[in-house]
Amino acid sequence: MKTTAVIMAGGRGERFWPKSRNSCPKQFLSLTSDGETMIQKTVRRLLPLVDMSDIYIVTNAAYGSLVAEQLPDIPKENILSEPAARNTAPCIAFAAAVINRKYDDAIMMVLPSDHLIGLEDIYINTLKKAARVAEQNGNLVTIGITPEYPETGYGYINFGSEDDNGAYRVKRFVEKPDLATAEMYFTSGKYLWNSGMFVWKLSTILDNIKRLMPDIYEGAVKIGEAYGTDSFNEVLVREFTAFRSESVDFGIMEKAENIYTIPGSFGWDDVGSWLAVERINKTDSDKNYITGDVISVASRHTTVCGGKRLIAAVGLEDVIIVDTDDAVLVCSKNSTQDVKKVIAQLREQGRNELV
Amino acid sequence: MKTTAVIMAGGRGERFWPKSRNSCPKQFLSLTSDGETMIQKTVRRLLPLVDMSDIYIVTNAAYGSLVAEQLPDIPKENILSEPAARNTAPCIAFAAAVINRKYDDAIMMVLPSDHLIGLEDIYINTLKKAARVAEQNGNLVTIGITPEYPETGYGYINFGSEDDNGAYRVKRFVEKPDLATAEMYFTSGKYLWNSGMFVWKLSTILDNIKRLMPDIYEGAVKIGEAYGTDSFNEVLVREFTAFRSESVDFGIMEKAENIYTIPGSFGWDDVGSWLAVERINKTDSDKNYITGDVISVASRHTTVCGGKRLIAAVGLEDVIIVDTDDAVLVCSKNSTQDVKKVIAQLREQGRNELV
Repeated sequence: MKTTAVIMAGGRGERFWPKSRNSCPKQFLSLTSDGETMIQKTVRRLLPLVDMSDIYIVTNAAYGSLVAEQLPDIPKENILSEPAARNTAPCIAFAAAVINRKYDDAIMMVLPSDHLIGLEDIYINTLKKAARVAEQNGNLVTIGITPEYPETGYGYINFGSEDDNGAYRVKRFVEKPDLATAEMYFTSGKYLWNSGMFVWKLSTILDNIKRLMPDIYEGAVKIGEAYGTDSFNEVLVREFTAFRSESVDFGIMEKAENIYTIPGSFGWDDVGSWLAVERINKTDSDKNYITGDVISVASRHTTVCGGKRLIAAVGLEDVIIVDTDDAVLVCSKNSTQDVKKVIAQLREQGRNELV
Repeated sequence: MKTTAVIMAGGRGERFWPKSRNSCPKQFLSLTSDGETMIQKTVRRLLPLVDMSDIYIVTNAAYGSLVAEQLPDIPKENILSEPAARNTAPCIAFAAAVINRKYDDAIMMVLPSDHLIGLEDIYINTLKKAARVAEQNGNLVTIGITPEYPETGYGYINFGSEDDNGAYRVKRFVEKPDLATAEMYFTSGKYLWNSGMFVWKLSTILDNIKRLMPDIYEGAVKIGEAYGTDSFNEVLVREFTAFRSESVDFGIMEKAENIYTIPGSFGWDDVGSWLAVERINKTDSDKNYITGDVISVASRHTTVCGGKRLIAAVGLEDVIIVDTDDAVLVCSKNSTQDVKKVIAQLREQGRNELV
């Protein structure tokens, strides 16, 4: 059975301000020294498993040209532009309806565009295993990440016994826990991190959308029918903007039958804030990660992402500096979550060009 | 007797990099929110005591146009440009020889161009008292600053008994002490900080230069004779560049007779590094001093001198940020002395446009 992939690239992440902006969110940035952007990495690492012509990018209409620019080998008709943000369930329904015009059935992998994978061979093998499980009995498969510590920033998957097919039955999905709960999850050995990667057959997900979200199914079918015709854009705007906002986790995964998880250990990193940059890159002997035109004197555990001007970092510890043409961020590592307060102030001041 | 003032403005201070550069050292910067530069303040605060036409600025030839621009009311012929840096003794000899062309004798006050004075009336009264002492018996008077804590970065003046004239006899000048010595000086009540401000009669200083530094005297007289003539520049370059480098402290003050000090308590601040900026300006309720286009979130005890771009300071404590068009400094308050290491690296790299 043919394997297809849908990469979700509509996010507007604020946590990489000032590099990320409304006009260029995280998935379109390079946060590693190789210069490859997050979405370019996401596509490249899939190529051993999925043909370029079977990779679909669902993104916000505003980012269509960024996708085309960064991924020139993706067919233009595979770039699916959402006319409004409606969370992941309408996004997946849209993509499934479109792919269904090309294939009667296929494996459909749904993947975030802005995560990093350290061990790409193991990642591919995990997806292959998920595809084998998804081919059977209308199974819905999610990739669970083996937790490395009691993270409170992720949702968790509580799994049960291993089935004949080598996958684990999902007992329930749980929201981001508090620290005590996260510690319990971590030590129990019965929980995985929810990575937001899904594998299923096209027919399976369409059946589930029809059954669990019939309103969204109906609109998606209309969009699929219009795909490739002159009326596509008109139908897309009308039907898609009418969708309610719904996550695939709540709309499908928490309600459907036959939910499985495959545990993955492939150096996954969701690159959630500037803190991640020193983790995903090689640091120097003082544990600094420094790029660009920077002079560092006696600084330690410090991240400096330089821009066009010289940055001198003197005697700093646990500080993050990010320079861009029109804004500089200087942030304590303990305060990366407060970067969104800067953005909120800029919005209040009406300085949208900086957001 | 007429009162004249000589403001020494040849310094190339590196401690305010990246705002201070070889092309624009500290005395030409504004480090206070009123926008007045250090040398503009120095001149303005003297005006109750000295006519504008009797204020002389001795500076490096490279800064002549900066002086003229910042101090348009100073007569052009009072801007004395040194063709080379030879420390304070040749500087003072040059100025004395020039002023001697205008006045047979006068009070001559020699003052740094880059210090701040909080209580200007008391400062003026202190200088007046020094002038009265200097008019008598060929006295050389230095203004000593009442120490506020055991500073190790200044030289000290060890003073003896109070004389009839209300001044204190100087027993000796001492170099920058170590901390234990500074503490001893501080608690003894017999030491003042050496501020580098001197008051004497023109005739007194010329007599002392002639006696203690006859070589420099000879050159200075030639320069004075050429002042106002077509050959001035040629004579100045020839005689001044031939001077040895010598400080007035070592060349005159430590060897001459009749050295007095007047203790001053007028909110003197030598503004020695970026640390001073929060001291000499009004800080906010979190003890931040912030100027320019800055958004601060949960930062404390932090100084941000913004430039043309937005600076976001998030969760910082005891950090100094200085933005300029081509360089940003981010420095821990404990490390302000290391700023010179940045400049040293820039020199090594041949990046003189940044120095």
